[in-house]
Amino acid sequence: MGIKTVTSDLAKFLINRRFEDLDDSVLEVSKHCLLDYLGVAIAAREEPLVRILLEQQLEEGGNPQATVIGSNRKATLQQACLINGAMAHAHDYDDVHVAMSGHPTVPVAPAVLALAEHEGKSGRELLLALATGIDTECILGSYVGPSHYAKGFHTTATLGTLGAAAGCAKLSGLNHGEIVNSLGIAATQAAGLKSMFGTMCKPFHAGNAAANGLFAAQLASKGFDSQQSSLEIAQGFAATHSDSWSDDKFELALGAGSFVPTILFKYHAACYLTHSALEATKHLKKTNDLHVEDVEQVVITVNEGHFSVCNIQQPVNGLEAKFSLRFVCAMALAGIDTASIEAFNDDLTCRADMIGLRDRIRVVAFPDPRAESRVEIHLRDGTRLQQDWDVAIPEQNLALQWQKLETKFMSLVRPVFGLNLAEEIAATIRGIEDLNDLSSLMQLVA
Amino acid sequence: MGIKTVTSDLAKFLINRRFEDLDDSVLEVSKHCLLDYLGVAIAAREEPLVRILLEQQLEEGGNPQATVIGSNRKATLQQACLINGAMAHAHDYDDVHVAMSGHPTVPVAPAVLALAEHEGKSGRELLLALATGIDTECILGSYVGPSHYAKGFHTTATLGTLGAAAGCAKLSGLNHGEIVNSLGIAATQAAGLKSMFGTMCKPFHAGNAAANGLFAAQLASKGFDSQQSSLEIAQGFAATHSDSWSDDKFELALGAGSFVPTILFKYHAACYLTHSALEATKHLKKTNDLHVEDVEQVVITVNEGHFSVCNIQQPVNGLEAKFSLRFVCAMALAGIDTASIEAFNDDLTCRADMIGLRDRIRVVAFPDPRAESRVEIHLRDGTRLQQDWDVAIPEQNLALQWQKLETKFMSLVRPVFGLNLAEEIAATIRGIEDLNDLSSLMQLVA
Repeated sequence: MGIKTVTSDLAKFLINRRFEDLDDSVLEVSKHCLLDYLGVAIAAREEPLVRILLEQQLEEGGNPQATVIGSNRKATLQQACLINGAMAHAHDYDDVHVAMSGHPTVPVAPAVLALAEHEGKSGRELLLALATGIDTECILGSYVGPSHYAKGFHTTATLGTLGAAAGCAKLSGLNHGEIVNSLGIAATQAAGLKSMFGTMCKPFHAGNAAANGLFAAQLASKGFDSQQSSLEIAQGFAATHSDSWSDDKFELALGAGSFVPTILFKYHAACYLTHSALEATKHLKKTNDLHVEDVEQVVITVNEGHFSVCNIQQPVNGLEAKFSLRFVCAMALAGIDTASIEAFNDDLTCRADMIGLRDRIRVVAFPDPRAESRVEIHLRDGTRLQQDWDVAIPEQNLALQWQKLETKFMSLVRPVFGLNLAEEIAATIRGIEDLNDLSSLMQLVA
Repeated sequence: MGIKTVTSDLAKFLINRRFEDLDDSVLEVSKHCLLDYLGVAIAAREEPLVRILLEQQLEEGGNPQATVIGSNRKATLQQACLINGAMAHAHDYDDVHVAMSGHPTVPVAPAVLALAEHEGKSGRELLLALATGIDTECILGSYVGPSHYAKGFHTTATLGTLGAAAGCAKLSGLNHGEIVNSLGIAATQAAGLKSMFGTMCKPFHAGNAAANGLFAAQLASKGFDSQQSSLEIAQGFAATHSDSWSDDKFELALGAGSFVPTILFKYHAACYLTHSALEATKHLKKTNDLHVEDVEQVVITVNEGHFSVCNIQQPVNGLEAKFSLRFVCAMALAGIDTASIEAFNDDLTCRADMIGLRDRIRVVAFPDPRAESRVEIHLRDGTRLQQDWDVAIPEQNLALQWQKLETKFMSLVRPVFGLNLAEEIAATIRGIEDLNDLSSLMQLVA
C-alpha cells in the first residue's frame, strides 16, 4: 500500500523544532493566542460548568501542581487542564483555525501552561511548545481532511488531544520513541462529538483534550507504550475517524511552515458569522464618524447560509441578540462594545432606541456564495456608504492584531480583576519570552 | 425519520431496574464476574504497565477515595478505576460477551466497586449496578451492530465507557435527566482503537473506560449537561461509530432480559482460540484417565482461520506457547495447569518431554467453518477417542461454573496472597449479597 510513516515523521518534525528557527510572526501570534486564551478563560471563571468542575476537583483532591485560573487554587496537572480548558471555551470566544476546522489554542494552552508551570520551564519553552502543539493540530487537520469534521467529530476535542500531547512531549523534551507513544496514547483517547454543541460538553471537550493529551505525554515519558503507527495504520486514528485522509496533504502540511500566523481571532461575543458584517459596520462608523441619528437605513448582504444561523429578526434576549445580524450591527452603530460578553444582555435587547435602530436594518443574500459580507449604509443626507469585509483573512498587521486583542482582553478581564491587574497580565505576556519561569504569570491569573 | 428515543429509553430501562426483579442466574453470574475480575487483577498487580500507572498516581496525589487492588493504597475514584481496570485486563484473561464483541466486566467492575466502596453501598447494590452496566454494554453492542468493532473501535473501551457510566448512575440513584446526561458525557468521551492491541494501551482502554464512565456519572449528578439524544442523534455516538446501528435491534435487546448469564469466561491463560481444543483434550484426559505415555498421536481439527492466530508449530518461549494449539494441548495432556499465567514459561516450552509430546500432535482444518474444535486421540493400544467442544456456548451449570472459576481464581491469587487470603476473598464474594458495605472485601484485596 505504500503508506507513509506519518506518526514517525510527525515525531521527527516535533523533535527537530527549535525556538531559534521560529519566525518572529510565529512567536508574536503565539503570544496573541496566550493573551486571548487567558482573557476568555478569566471572563468565564464563574460559569456554571466551571463551578461544577471546581466542585469535582475539591472532592478528588490532589497535589497542587498547577494553577486553576481565577480560583486562587492549585490542582493536579490534569485537573488544571480540564478546568482551564473548559473555562476558556465556555463562551466559544477563543481563536479558530481553518486548517483544523476548530479552536487551536484552547486544548493546547492549558496543557503546556500547566506543565511549564509545574516543571519550571521558561517563557521561550512555553511559546515553542504552544506553537508546536497548534501546528500538530493543523498538520493533522490537513491529514485527516474535511471528512473528519463532517462525520461528526469535534476537531477541537480530537485533534486537540493530539496537539496537547505533542506540545507537552516537546516541552518535556521526550525522545522519538516517547513522542510516538505520546501520539499513540493520545490518539486512542481522542474523542468528542459535534452533536454536543450547545451543551456543557462542548467546552468540556477542550479541557478534556488538554488533560488527556498531557496525560499521554506523561505516561509515555514513564515508558508506557502504544501502537507505533497509530495515526496511519489500518484501524488507526485516521482510518477510524475520516474517509478522506491523505498522505500527500500530510506531507504538504508538514513542510508548509507554521500555521500559527494564520490563526483567526474573535473580537465580538456574538456568532462568528456576524463578524464580517460587524467589522464592516464598525469600519464605516469609524472612518465616517457616524452618529446613530444620521443613519436612515442599513442593508447587510451575506451568504444565504447565514440566514439559518444568525438572522433572528427580533431577538428578545441577550443570547438571541448574538445570533441576530440586525441587532449586532445596531450595537456597532450605537458604539456599544461588542467584545464584551455582558453587553449582550436582555435589557439592551429590549431597549426602545436599539429596537428602533435594529428595525432600520435589512438583511439580504448574495445571489452567489461569497467569502465576505457587505454593509451599505444610507444616511439621511443622501450619502451612501459601502464596505465589504471577510474576517476569514488573517490580519497581516500583527501590531494592530495585538492592539485589538488587548482591547478585547481588557474588556473581558477588567470587570473581573480590575484595570491594574489586567494591564499587568497583558504586559507580562507581551514580554513572556524573557521569563525564566511562569510562576509570576500564573500568580497573576490565579 | 422516526428515530427511536434510544438514550431516553435506555435511561428509563436503567431507572426501572430493581434488584428484586433480577433472576437468580443474573445474580449468580454477576458474582462469577466479580470473582474472575478480582483474580485476573490480583495476578497482574506487578505488571510494568501497572507500575507506571501507580507511579503516575503517586505524583498526582489525591484523596483516598477507593482501594487500588494489591497495592495497600487508596486513590481517587478515577485513579482507582484506571489502575484496577488496566490491571484486570493486562493478561487479557477476563470474561467476554458476544453481544458486545468485547470484555464486559473489566470496564464496569472497577467503576461500580470504587463508587460502592466510596459511597458505602451494599453488596446487593453493587451486584445490581454491575449487572446493569454489563447489560448496557450488551444492549448498545446490539444497537451499534458488528460494524462498530469492524471499523476499528475497541468495544471494551467505547461501550465500556457507557456501561461504566450506566452502572455508576444506577448505583448513585440518578434520575432520568441525570442518567441521560451521564450517557451523553460518556458517549462524547468514548474512545479506543483496536489497532492498539498488543500494546499497553489495550489494558489502558479498560481502565480509562471505567474512569471516564464514572466521571460522567459524577458530573451529571452535579448538574453537568450534554446532548439529550447522544446515542441516536445525527452525528451522535452511533452515527459516528457505526454503519449498522439499528433501532429494532436496540429495542429487541432492551426487552431480551439480562445478558449476564451468557457471559463467557476464560479458563486458560492462552489465546482464546485454543480454548475449545484445550477443553476437549482435558475432557478426554479426565474421562479416560489418560497418561502421557499412552498417547501415540493427537489430531486437532479447527477452523482454518485459527491457523494465522494460534498455530505456532514450534514455540520457543512462554508467549509463543500461548499461541500454539499443539503446545497448549500437550500441556493439558501432561496435566499442567493451563489456568496459571506462570505455567506459560520459557523453560517448559523448551523441555524435551514437552517437545516430544507436542510433536505427536497435528493440527488440521475443517473443510467448512464450524463453531467447535475437535480433538482425536489415538492411544498406543489402538483406541481412538474423539471429543468436540465449543467454548462459545455459555455454561448452563452455574455451580460448576463457579467451581471452575474458583479453581482459576486460586491458581491466580494463591501465589500472590497465599491460600488463606485467597480462600477468604472467594468466600466473601460467594456471600456478597449479605454485605452491608464493601469495606471488608476491599480490605482483603488491597
